[in-house]
Amino acid sequence: MAAQPIGRHFLQIPGPTNVPDEVLRAIAAPTIDHRGPEFARLTREVLDGLGPVFGTTNPVVVYASSGTGAWEAALVNTLSPGDRVLAFETGHFATLWRDMAEALGLRVDFVPGDWRRGVDPDTVAERLAADREHTVKAVCVVHNETSTGVTSRIPEIRNALDQAGHPALLLVDTISSLGSIDYRHDEWGVDVTVSCSQKGLMLPPGLGFNAVSDKALRARESARLPRSYWDWKPILEANRRGFFHSTPATNLLYGLREALRLLDTEGLPQVFARHRRHAEATRAAVRGWGLEVLCADEREHSAALTAVVVPEGHDAETIRELILDRFNTSLGAGLGRLAGTVFRIGHLGHFNDAALIGTLGGVQLGLRLAGVPVGEHGINAALDVLGRKETA
Amino acid sequence: MAAQPIGRHFLQIPGPTNVPDEVLRAIAAPTIDHRGPEFARLTREVLDGLGPVFGTTNPVVVYASSGTGAWEAALVNTLSPGDRVLAFETGHFATLWRDMAEALGLRVDFVPGDWRRGVDPDTVAERLAADREHTVKAVCVVHNETSTGVTSRIPEIRNALDQAGHPALLLVDTISSLGSIDYRHDEWGVDVTVSCSQKGLMLPPGLGFNAVSDKALRARESARLPRSYWDWKPILEANRRGFFHSTPATNLLYGLREALRLLDTEGLPQVFARHRRHAEATRAAVRGWGLEVLCADEREHSAALTAVVVPEGHDAETIRELILDRFNTSLGAGLGRLAGTVFRIGHLGHFNDAALIGTLGGVQLGLRLAGVPVGEHGINAALDVLGRKETA
Amino acid sequence: MAAQPIGRHFLQIPGPTNVPDEVLRAIAAPTIDHRGPEFARLTREVLDGLGPVFGTTNPVVVYASSGTGAWEAALVNTLSPGDRVLAFETGHFATLWRDMAEALGLRVDFVPGDWRRGVDPDTVAERLAADREHTVKAVCVVHNETSTGVTSRIPEIRNALDQAGHPALLLVDTISSLGSIDYRHDEWGVDVTVSCSQKGLMLPPGLGFNAVSDKALRARESARLPRSYWDWKPILEANRRGFFHSTPATNLLYGLREALRLLDTEGLPQVFARHRRHAEATRAAVRGWGLEVLCADEREHSAALTAVVVPEGHDAETIRELILDRFNTSLGAGLGRLAGTVFRIGHLGHFNDAALIGTLGGVQLGLRLAGVPVGEHGINAALDVLGRKETA
Amino acid sequence: MAAQPIGRHFLQIPGPTNVPDEVLRAIAAPTIDHRGPEFARLTREVLDGLGPVFGTTNPVVVYASSGTGAWEAALVNTLSPGDRVLAFETGHFATLWRDMAEALGLRVDFVPGDWRRGVDPDTVAERLAADREHTVKAVCVVHNETSTGVTSRIPEIRNALDQAGHPALLLVDTISSLGSIDYRHDEWGVDVTVSCSQKGLMLPPGLGFNAVSDKALRARESARLPRSYWDWKPILEANRRGFFHSTPATNLLYGLREALRLLDTEGLPQVFARHRRHAEATRAAVRGWGLEVLCADEREHSAALTAVVVPEGHDAETIRELILDRFNTSLGAGLGRLAGTVFRIGHLGHFNDAALIGTLGGVQLGLRLAGVPVGEHGINAALDVLGRKETA
Repeated sequence: MAAQPIGRHFLQIPGPTNVPDEVLRAIAAPTIDHRGPEFARLTREVLDGLGPVFGTTNPVVVYASSGTGAWEAALVNTLSPGDRVLAFETGHFATLWRDMAEALGLRVDFVPGDWRRGVDPDTVAERLAADREHTVKAVCVVHNETSTGVTSRIPEIRNALDQAGHPALLLVDTISSLGSIDYRHDEWGVDVTVSCSQKGLMLPPGLGFNAVSDKALRARESARLPRSYWDWKPILEANRRGFFHSTPATNLLYGLREALRLLDTEGLPQVFARHRRHAEATRAAVRGWGLEVLCADEREHSAALTAVVVPEGHDAETIRELILDRFNTSLGAGLGRLAGTVFRIGHLGHFNDAALIGTLGGVQLGLRLAGVPVGEHGINAALDVLGRKETA
Repeated sequence: MAAQPIGRHFLQIPGPTNVPDEVLRAIAAPTIDHRGPEFARLTREVLDGLGPVFGTTNPVVVYASSGTGAWEAALVNTLSPGDRVLAFETGHFATLWRDMAEALGLRVDFVPGDWRRGVDPDTVAERLAADREHTVKAVCVVHNETSTGVTSRIPEIRNALDQAGHPALLLVDTISSLGSIDYRHDEWGVDVTVSCSQKGLMLPPGLGFNAVSDKALRARESARLPRSYWDWKPILEANRRGFFHSTPATNLLYGLREALRLLDTEGLPQVFARHRRHAEATRAAVRGWGLEVLCADEREHSAALTAVVVPEGHDAETIRELILDRFNTSLGAGLGRLAGTVFRIGHLGHFNDAALIGTLGGVQLGLRLAGVPVGEHGINAALDVLGRKETA
Repeated sequence: MAAQPIGRHFLQIPGPTNVPDEVLRAIAAPTIDHRGPEFARLTREVLDGLGPVFGTTNPVVVYASSGTGAWEAALVNTLSPGDRVLAFETGHFATLWRDMAEALGLRVDFVPGDWRRGVDPDTVAERLAADREHTVKAVCVVHNETSTGVTSRIPEIRNALDQAGHPALLLVDTISSLGSIDYRHDEWGVDVTVSCSQKGLMLPPGLGFNAVSDKALRARESARLPRSYWDWKPILEANRRGFFHSTPATNLLYGLREALRLLDTEGLPQVFARHRRHAEATRAAVRGWGLEVLCADEREHSAALTAVVVPEGHDAETIRELILDRFNTSLGAGLGRLAGTVFRIGHLGHFNDAALIGTLGGVQLGLRLAGVPVGEHGINAALDVLGRKETA
Repeated sequence: MAAQPIGRHFLQIPGPTNVPDEVLRAIAAPTIDHRGPEFARLTREVLDGLGPVFGTTNPVVVYASSGTGAWEAALVNTLSPGDRVLAFETGHFATLWRDMAEALGLRVDFVPGDWRRGVDPDTVAERLAADREHTVKAVCVVHNETSTGVTSRIPEIRNALDQAGHPALLLVDTISSLGSIDYRHDEWGVDVTVSCSQKGLMLPPGLGFNAVSDKALRARESARLPRSYWDWKPILEANRRGFFHSTPATNLLYGLREALRLLDTEGLPQVFARHRRHAEATRAAVRGWGLEVLCADEREHSAALTAVVVPEGHDAETIRELILDRFNTSLGAGLGRLAGTVFRIGHLGHFNDAALIGTLGGVQLGLRLAGVPVGEHGINAALDVLGRKETA
């Protein structure tokens, strides 16, 4: 086993993702005065560039924080102590968001799930229809559940709210989908879109985002959860002048400007198509190995990552460690109830066919070396998908 | 006037400060798996290195946040809704912290001040002695008030608490002092030390810190302000295994490791002595120009920055803009009630005699070009101080 | 076809090679005074570190130049106008070196070759035995012919000189072997070893090297080709004091220091074994595709690159362009008489299994998309080789 | 004395100069295929950008080399063994160029000088007038003598050649003037302009340049000094297709592209005016200290550097070391016959008023600390110059 990593690391966890060299160099620029004219230009460039990525013409609030902080921001700006929230057990991160909501003093109706499926729009409809008093103040949905590789269908969920004529806010976590999977804050009527920097945006971690609807901004007026750092209002006011309320993470904003430029140059439709192709090729490999993809619904396969079920009698962690040691490739662990039984292949962000082939080849070989009986066709099945005529 | 900045920028605001090249290159290293073995080593290195800088053997909690976030963390981990807090109007940032405490539902006894002096230890003693019922739960002090260039005397304040036999927690903001001005969390009996990355630690903004005493950790057990992102407990638990509770700002941690190495190589006593020399040279220049330093108490001159009072009839903002345009040097604006009447020279962080001379020369010339009558002796007075035999 | 490259580029030409991130960051450090004390330390570190890589305790001369410059240096320091030189047509670069020697006024006996084999030691022996007058002053050998992927056997060639009792100097080009393929300047009795930065040393181009034997240094005394920039003597004299005769390429020297550290950490035997494994895996893939490796002698397969013969009726350039466009992977073109009929896969330098798999997968798919009939087993044959128990 | 340098280094030798952060980050971009389409774009951009800086529409040849290599290139492309060359002892570098010419087999008529003056146009005229047979094949002039801070007047020298009706080539070294001092290859009828990267072009060392006139290109046809690496022809041929004859120093070319962009953004006339102002301010400081500028002719003061004569009884090297240790500022040593009696202040390249003030302040203080009796008015005299209304 290699004692030290050799060659370029393959960071194939579902985030943080491989940061482009251009972005790394951008964040190495000298820090500037966050109250000066050059900073004001930077602010405007990144805020202007973020809108299209979220699919919104409404404001996007940028925090120095992780995505977890952006979860908190979504809740404390819109809700009051004791408010009821409807949430869904789609996996580990949905469960953590539920825990946070409860820690902040909210009451969460948590619809159980088997961690292999997204949010069921029918269940949303039923639950909301049953809430005649409109005591549910918000519906929390994780768009792409990073722990399972399952993507919930937001437009259908939106439709369920509309059909029920229910006024609850729709809060959506796009932490591992934004910039990788088609997403439309405005068109889909989302009230708060939560995201962060280190996945599809191809940045290091350290920035959290809230895209906010007018309805969310109005909800803020009466929401009574204590808030200060996360408060949208002073940030948006400062943004209008080109600044931030508290000192922003300047160098990550340099990186964000560069990452937005890269996304814009490739084109969002091309970015999304690339992610879909890579996901399809990955699933083809998994099936070629004779293994099972965790996601149980064809409509909900994530374009950003694929969770692979490890056959009984094998430990996913042993496999992951072997692949890290031997192939300098990081894969995602099974989280929560999936610990040891699942590993996750991230194929999102700054990525291409050659890197995917290298990743899948390392996984195929790693599985074999770990004694997991796998079919040899995996890698060639992936090549077959990648060899098809590209249709952007 | 130069249309574009030429040459190396002089970032002489009192933070963010000039980031060393080594630190900028460190943060440009590829992002790694925040759950992998290499990350665990990084975590241990930065946490081990932070202790001496805070003067503590207790834990230091690291957030992806600005310093403002670290303020909030100090409050929500230790206090409950409606708790009384004693705070002091030493300047703009003390006032903002007060505002935050109130926004979070605390009641603040705010001792008024003239923005030219630090916290008066006698007043602390009086206020606490008067609080027989011990309804004051925390005393909030800004160690180095970034808006005024005044440094409060924490050991004397600690003494005041002790003399009063008052059990209130002592919360200290070291945002613009840590790594620049001598500070001792343990020795001075501070319960929560709040700080951030972009000042004496010579990093870009994006990291917030809380050093926490055992008493503060115990206070957390009963504190009832809602908290999740800022909650110390899950972070400290994850830290023990080398990780963080939510995704940390990996690349800034690379920079932190490098910055801690730089501070350690120079030696903290040498770092503090350097800051004192530069502050003294700066004050000598200000007096040589015939201008007034804002700080009114000789015992409280900040070693990190100097606020200069602009003579009546002149606008500090005009002077700052001229110096930025003409000398590519950023100075700090007067904040809050000091707007327009004061400018601030930051002389902290990654800095040396030549850079200070360049800064002061630019200010001398900028003042003259702005029509402020200034003595020529300013720069030479600074040289006289810098030319004295160094005594580390 | 992708209009712009997406994801990390795979630079799989046989040099310049993929530069490690650490090296790229190292060369971005600020330039320093090339006559100051810090520079003297740098000089000593890189010169000390180079010796083991060349397998010498003799001096290594470092030029600001390409490898072509280092060729010229080897000739002008040791030879006089009209001197006879024995050289071998092993490929494009051996031919270019011949051209250079002639341009500089030397007479070259150029032994013809078929560009599929290395230098034949028996031919060396015969030629030198026939040279009873010792009119041949130098034997020029390309260790690893970058245009063909054939490695000549230097120890056997040395033996041929020794057997012939011929005093000719042995000049060896290790441009694409140094740091990738076992090489021993002293042990093999080489007089001048020519090399450069951008291959196994994992640096950008811009540095040329001459390792020189005592015999070569003595030859310099009487050699009369005009020389100034390339003259070893003033450089070696300056090196002794830690400096260079003319301004050195400081920032590339920073990178060299870092690259030498990386090689030392991995260990040269491990580095060479890695290159051999990757070469073997690549040849397995080529055979699995049903294609032919250009190198015709099993003893001479290059560990650094593999030249692949394209079946008749197909154009290697079309294939290369397709693979560049579609897989963001650069391959080497066929050079000189091999133009259009051969492409070259570089597998040297900063490289690992996952990157090799990605490269070979891209080639397999690219060949198929270009209409070349290739067997599917190629990639799996490579995986079989890579899956074997490593024996460093 | 500081044991380790603190803060940003002031690299005030007359080259290498302070490299802008943008340029350092540019050279840290991954190396690309030097035969691919992206490289061809890079080649065209840098070659197009170089023309205006040299003041030529003719080709500029770019070498991986130091400036010394570019000297050699100028000679071997245009001259034959035994050719006579007229050169002038303006200082250390003119002398080294003479030494090189002799080493390469040329005969040099070396007009003696006192190292305080540039080339006298009248002497050029006389010498050439006396050469009725036109045996002098080239006139070699150092435009800005880096060892003395004296700038020769090229237009007047050109005029002298013209007046004499002499066909000798005019070869000009602009190593420390290009990009800092007005220079016009075409307009002034220069045949070969020699330069390099690490001075006014604000790059690390590693690139050499020859701008070549049509007459020089014609001279190359019959010149018989051996040449291969330096041969213009194959390079210019490859350049036409976007490539180089031997592997170019790719990453330095990235830096060159960025540096040319910076020069273009500031504007060459503004760049030259800035250098003149800084030189004037520096001379004002020197006189304010009561010291002597080495350059003896008011018409020939260099805008790029100032050599300062140290009063008898003091050692320039001791002063330089003190200033390096104490102020982290590198100054240039006295070279050759000026060793110990002169130090040189570089004020060229990426530089601004604040950095100049910092430099001059450090020198003033360093002189005083070294016991040299200096007037205090130096720094203020410089400020007076810098405070004048700018006239770009």
